[in-house]
Amino acid sequence: MPVAPWRAPLAAALHRNRRLSHARYVQLATVRTDGRPANRTVVFRGFLENSDRLQIVTDARSQKVAQVAQIEGNTWGEACWYFPKTREQFRLSGRLILVNGDRVEIPLQQARRAAWEALSDRGREGFAWPPPGQPRAESDAFEGLQPDPSEPLPQFCLLLLDPDGVDLLQLRSHPHDRRCYQRQEDGTWLTHRVNP
Amino acid sequence: MPVAPWRAPLAAALHRNRRLSHARYVQLATVRTDGRPANRTVVFRGFLENSDRLQIVTDARSQKVAQVAQIEGNTWGEACWYFPKTREQFRLSGRLILVNGDRVEIPLQQARRAAWEALSDRGREGFAWPPPGQPRAESDAFEGLQPDPSEPLPQFCLLLLDPDGVDLLQLRSHPHDRRCYQRQEDGTWLTHRVNP
Repeated sequence: MPVAPWRAPLAAALHRNRRLSHARYVQLATVRTDGRPANRTVVFRGFLENSDRLQIVTDARSQKVAQVAQIEGNTWGEACWYFPKTREQFRLSGRLILVNGDRVEIPLQQARRAAWEALSDRGREGFAWPPPGQPRAESDAFEGLQPDPSEPLPQFCLLLLDPDGVDLLQLRSHPHDRRCYQRQEDGTWLTHRVNP
Repeated sequence: MPVAPWRAPLAAALHRNRRLSHARYVQLATVRTDGRPANRTVVFRGFLENSDRLQIVTDARSQKVAQVAQIEGNTWGEACWYFPKTREQFRLSGRLILVNGDRVEIPLQQARRAAWEALSDRGREGFAWPPPGQPRAESDAFEGLQPDPSEPLPQFCLLLLDPDGVDLLQLRSHPHDRRCYQRQEDGTWLTHRVNP
């Protein structure tokens, strides 16, 4: 299967905005167990090999994992990715796939391990902190934590977003340019140019 | 009622990031009619006078209005606001209130009119474009549009987000600092310091 047609404009946007450290920050929306939307900033960690699935990392103890795990295989997310320099917005909508330590698929476990190894020491440290969202622990609970760089902590998860719809808005031109990409049953993509 | 306790750190973040034009861009999550999350970038247009309600503007013909209008009075949103310079994230969760031309409350109509007048000519022009999301119209449909700056087009809406929960994450320090603010029944706010 060739890569999706929205990958080329996304790669171009990443390249043109590469000097902005926050160009890899994306806002990921999910639905809470009470039906309200949730939204938080996550870091794009590249695509899963040979796929159009976006990789992010998360802590199994976080709320978003509870939101993803509630209906396994039927959990949706929408990432909103704004590139300040080129004034482009990608909205990527699709299923979320949680890869925790229990997943048996070898390529997914390899990807989870690779994501752990690619983190900085400080990034790995965050996963050893006391449980997120709980009342603030004493400061010594945050000290002296040096997780093994070659062995992911059990709470370390890879989260994959598998887009089946992408909405690209380019604000540079006036009027703006907007394209919608939709994945078909057979895995191919349709592209429509729509009004902004 | 005094302003909410998260207003001071938000005002400080806005001030410290004021040189970034996109510091007023916020990602707003809602839930689609099919239960999937939606997420898009919107522009913060200040607070509604004498309130903690965030103002944004939108087109009645857009999907987000369909999402807000579906269950009037019971529609939730979560804004995720990341400030690149100070490395702070505000997540603001609450009810969405749509102010279209039919709303009879005079202060809300005044706020809608003021928001229209505050737009640039180009900003107002966008509301006169052919319906968003429809197949791309011919280019002449986007030309010669000069809506009256003193009279909002019928499709022009003010959208208010009335936060009842705010989650502030500050990434500058290591470990990070995180505070949750919750509005109580009586309108006062509780603040908790939690693990990041």
